[in-house]
Amino acid sequence: MNDFQKLCPKVQKTFDIIGKRWNGLIIYVLMSGPKRFSEIHTSIPSLSKRMLTERMKELEDEGIVIRHVIPERPVRIEYILTKKGTELGSILGPVSQWANEWL
Amino acid sequence: MNDFQKLCPKVQKTFDIIGKRWNGLIIYVLMSGPKRFSEIHTSIPSLSKRMLTERMKELEDEGIVIRHVIPERPVRIEYILTKKGTELGSILGPVSQWANEWL
Repeated sequence: MNDFQKLCPKVQKTFDIIGKRWNGLIIYVLMSGPKRFSEIHTSIPSLSKRMLTERMKELEDEGIVIRHVIPERPVRIEYILTKKGTELGSILGPVSQWANEWL
Repeated sequence: MNDFQKLCPKVQKTFDIIGKRWNGLIIYVLMSGPKRFSEIHTSIPSLSKRMLTERMKELEDEGIVIRHVIPERPVRIEYILTKKGTELGSILGPVSQWANEWL
């Protein structure tokens, strides 16, 4: 055996985040820039609005996404990746190369 | 909007794989080399043997892992990442840096 025998709890926690259905995809979509709720939904139509709402709240609680309220009339809301979120997203970037090569 | 508006189905499929609970962690553990079932289980004790069996079968069906039967007595079985699996695993490698920096 080797140093993987006892997995670091922080690594496990990271996989809990990206290994939770839809999270990786949402972070990936937000890597192209701030998005409104409806834009994220358009990008991932198979994800229900109810589930998207739930995931966005969780990602906000994790400090990965911020919900930016623009005080216009009508009020506009954008979701933006934090630095923590952007760095996680940059790990997920090469997914598209793998996808194109192997699937 | 931009080119993320319509997500590539291959990218969605990739996130289906790594966004399925435990898969990312299993691939990550196998990146350190071929492992027996019990070794994988030792690395991820919170994953039940029943669920691990199910996930290994799925990863085998996806062509990510091969189940290598060593014809000794008693028979030994090792799980090894294919090239497809190793390339996916190398995407997931930087997860540990992110985990240590942000969690």
